[in-house]
Amino acid sequence: MSNYGFTVLDESECNALLPTQRVGRVAVNAEHLAVLPVVYALLDGDVVFRTAPGDKLVAAARHESVTFEIDEYDTDERRGWSVNVVGVAAEIVHPDDLARVHALDLPAWAGEVRDRFVRIRATHVTGRRLEPNPAPA
Amino acid sequence: MSNYGFTVLDESECNALLPTQRVGRVAVNAEHLAVLPVVYALLDGDVVFRTAPGDKLVAAARHESVTFEIDEYDTDERRGWSVNVVGVAAEIVHPDDLARVHALDLPAWAGEVRDRFVRIRATHVTGRRLEPNPAPA
Repeated sequence: MSNYGFTVLDESECNALLPTQRVGRVAVNAEHLAVLPVVYALLDGDVVFRTAPGDKLVAAARHESVTFEIDEYDTDERRGWSVNVVGVAAEIVHPDDLARVHALDLPAWAGEVRDRFVRIRATHVTGRRLEPNPAPA
Repeated sequence: MSNYGFTVLDESECNALLPTQRVGRVAVNAEHLAVLPVVYALLDGDVVFRTAPGDKLVAAARHESVTFEIDEYDTDERRGWSVNVVGVAAEIVHPDDLARVHALDLPAWAGEVRDRFVRIRATHVTGRRLEPNPAPA
């Protein structure tokens, strides 16, 4: 589907793009709407990321809906894509799941206190692709 | 200020980072929380971007608070930064301002119908920097 010059990606196209990046962003409704980068991986197809006490963990504790975003752009070629995963955030607490998420070897960029893991159970996955306008016929 | 392994950036550090990128992301509360990439520029220090009818323009028409985000990461070096600009979105409609924003030459990646411009008047600018943990002494 084309709409205002971008192409809407279907869910399978979005899911195929999810493993291609390492850094995404999580948007949460905190005091202000916050957009915070995370290093992520996939566990049973769900986005998982490591975090520390803060807005993202509060959202997970409340099982709030959050939006995870990835994108990739080539500004010279004027092409790119983005994917949004809307879902419910929940901290991973079951020992079996914690063992599996530790095995993903998500880096602790920001200190060893950053030892909590959040999973986003997707409810809506959307994406769009921008490409240069076709040359006039 | 250091907090859970990341350094909080002050407003002047954030403002110095704003001109360093070309693509940012705008988070808006639509049907779901949406995070949408935009090519942006600065006009009198405000983030401005080109858009088409859709969630971003609806937010601007309603003068809603939105959050603009930029970041840069080096996943091998495990360092990076991000900046959030929280502010009120408004469509640029004054002819003088439109002439100035057209002069910024923001590319129309997604078709010529994408001819509307939105300005974000910042109310809060925040940022954080992640760096590798110092080696143990």
